[in-house]
Amino acid sequence: MDLNQTLPQIDIPRDMIHLGIGQPSNHLLPIKELEKAAAHCLSKENSFFLAYGEDRGNANFRQTLAEFLTDRYPNRVDPEQLLITNGNSQALDFICTLFTNPGDTVLVEEPSYFLALRIFADRKLNLVSIPVDDNGLVTDVLIKKLETLKPSFLYTIPTYHNPASVTQSFKRRQELVEICAQKNLLVVADEVYHFLNYSDDPPPPMGNWINTCPLISLGSFSKILAPGLRLGWMHTNIDLIKKMAKSGLLDSGGGFNPFTSEIVNSVIRLGLLNTHIQRLKKIYAQRLKIFCHQLRIHLPKQAKFMIPKGGYFIWVKLPDNMDTQSLRKAAQKQNLDFNHGALFSHKKGLKNYIRLSFAFYDEDVLAESARRLGKVISENLS
Amino acid sequence: MDLNQTLPQIDIPRDMIHLGIGQPSNHLLPIKELEKAAAHCLSKENSFFLAYGEDRGNANFRQTLAEFLTDRYPNRVDPEQLLITNGNSQALDFICTLFTNPGDTVLVEEPSYFLALRIFADRKLNLVSIPVDDNGLVTDVLIKKLETLKPSFLYTIPTYHNPASVTQSFKRRQELVEICAQKNLLVVADEVYHFLNYSDDPPPPMGNWINTCPLISLGSFSKILAPGLRLGWMHTNIDLIKKMAKSGLLDSGGGFNPFTSEIVNSVIRLGLLNTHIQRLKKIYAQRLKIFCHQLRIHLPKQAKFMIPKGGYFIWVKLPDNMDTQSLRKAAQKQNLDFNHGALFSHKKGLKNYIRLSFAFYDEDVLAESARRLGKVISENLS
Repeated sequence: MDLNQTLPQIDIPRDMIHLGIGQPSNHLLPIKELEKAAAHCLSKENSFFLAYGEDRGNANFRQTLAEFLTDRYPNRVDPEQLLITNGNSQALDFICTLFTNPGDTVLVEEPSYFLALRIFADRKLNLVSIPVDDNGLVTDVLIKKLETLKPSFLYTIPTYHNPASVTQSFKRRQELVEICAQKNLLVVADEVYHFLNYSDDPPPPMGNWINTCPLISLGSFSKILAPGLRLGWMHTNIDLIKKMAKSGLLDSGGGFNPFTSEIVNSVIRLGLLNTHIQRLKKIYAQRLKIFCHQLRIHLPKQAKFMIPKGGYFIWVKLPDNMDTQSLRKAAQKQNLDFNHGALFSHKKGLKNYIRLSFAFYDEDVLAESARRLGKVISENLS
Repeated sequence: MDLNQTLPQIDIPRDMIHLGIGQPSNHLLPIKELEKAAAHCLSKENSFFLAYGEDRGNANFRQTLAEFLTDRYPNRVDPEQLLITNGNSQALDFICTLFTNPGDTVLVEEPSYFLALRIFADRKLNLVSIPVDDNGLVTDVLIKKLETLKPSFLYTIPTYHNPASVTQSFKRRQELVEICAQKNLLVVADEVYHFLNYSDDPPPPMGNWINTCPLISLGSFSKILAPGLRLGWMHTNIDLIKKMAKSGLLDSGGGFNPFTSEIVNSVIRLGLLNTHIQRLKKIYAQRLKIFCHQLRIHLPKQAKFMIPKGGYFIWVKLPDNMDTQSLRKAAQKQNLDFNHGALFSHKKGLKNYIRLSFAFYDEDVLAESARRLGKVISENLS
């Protein structure tokens, strides 16, 4: 059992299994693919991607990405509908600059991605939440909220939700888009796990509806290639692209990441991204199967969870009276860590939930973590 | 004479000489160096730089950069005083997020870098300017302004100013730092041209005073390596670094650019950056000599300019009654373009100035541009 993966971002004690880590195992990082791609694109004579880039991302990379997405989406994606970003965190920050002022209301889901909540808090935004059920964001509550609120945008994670792992149904997607079209409310859809399905294909991405309501679909290479690349994209309608590309930041710096874009362009053109995603899906699907099996064996029956159909996470509900922040402290003493539910709530609710990631550890470690988790939950049931 | 360089960011007509382009000639972009560096770092087993990075930039790259700066600065630079950025435009945007609210006052120089002015305008900041003379920012005016204003920060370009090409004297730097220490005013010093000197070394960078007053020195690889890398750094005191690293954006995305950082780490470790800077300095110094000589020959005596000691630009003063925006239109008809002065003034002053870049074209093109410029100015003198 190999726990000893070092990470730049977090310092993990030697014997600790940290199920909070939402990133690929070190051995799944595609260094050989990037070596090939870098050699491919840097051996050329043409060095245009070393100059200041096009504000929305260089045309050849947007073309490659549009083809990649068109092959996988139900509708054609046009290169003019894409704006290249430094990944979804930066994209969210950029959206805040363009579409909000401090004090504005932004709608988020309950639960939502905890670091997005942090980015919004840094912007001094007023967060109001809409619950998520087994079919994703509850549109009836959204309708109700919009009777009195005028939010700057709605932030949603429609597919393989982080942390709730649910996927919004096709029907709910249509409802959401209709409501937002009627109210002219901008939807920011974080679709970072869309390509990581382990059984059926998910419903169409929200990017499908960019011409129906104001909507920006955020995609990223962090989960399907490597987080350290800091490369992602916005997929939206051409008018919104033009508006964003006119910002001072893009005009001054050129596109957000022309050099890395060109290397990833070669990754895609050489067929390496497709192979890599297939490999990831196979490995994660197997991990998920083993991990869920072990959780079913070791967790007490009061712990409830659904088997996710994709993404990185399992969202476990514990009895209402359990405070998972305290549980986490008890777990740490037994060399286990995870993310507690309140992290994912802008109002510090969800105290009886925990989020478990299966992206970072191999199956044997996940099995061991299920044993440790079962033990610590059982010991802390009142 | 070879004009046919294509650029992703701007579309330049075939016979146009555009002296507004503030970036290296295509043949000065170091693709071979990056090819070597990518092969060097991607052939290793260790792929930590493909994971989410340390919030302030990965430690090994900050170590390499600290050594690089220490070799060239009068005082030692500590890796803990550095935060890696996506270049100075992104750094300015990030500083706005952390230190300003819409409506806040920010002090800028008159003239100032026009795209920084755009970034501040996007943030709805209230800009107030301090004039620049032959010794840089006029500290007496700063003192006066600070009697009534409480700005969020002061943005200054101390060395080889863009566009004014002046360098702030050592005495003025000391005065500036004393004033800002007393008033607890944050100084944001854009030092992007610091290493591009063509005669004597410049005064110490403002980074020299990071422990004397609140001060962030911005550095970048855009001018000394390649703009498309979108890589730069902040050099400031450890407390400010800690404050910035705690932002939601960095916590969520990890460091701003871990992958490119690792490639540039290899560029520096292989000694390629030093050689590249020496090459750039030699070439730019020669261009500057020829260009100034030709300008002296061809411009009418009413056009005044100083020969810059470094950087990219020549700042030409024309008679007070000349409007260089109209002059620009006349120039374009003769296949010449440049940036007009009002771009560099937040209050649309400086109408009788023009900025000429000598970074993009070879000597023969610069000589031809001097002829065209002399002709168009002479024709438009009243």
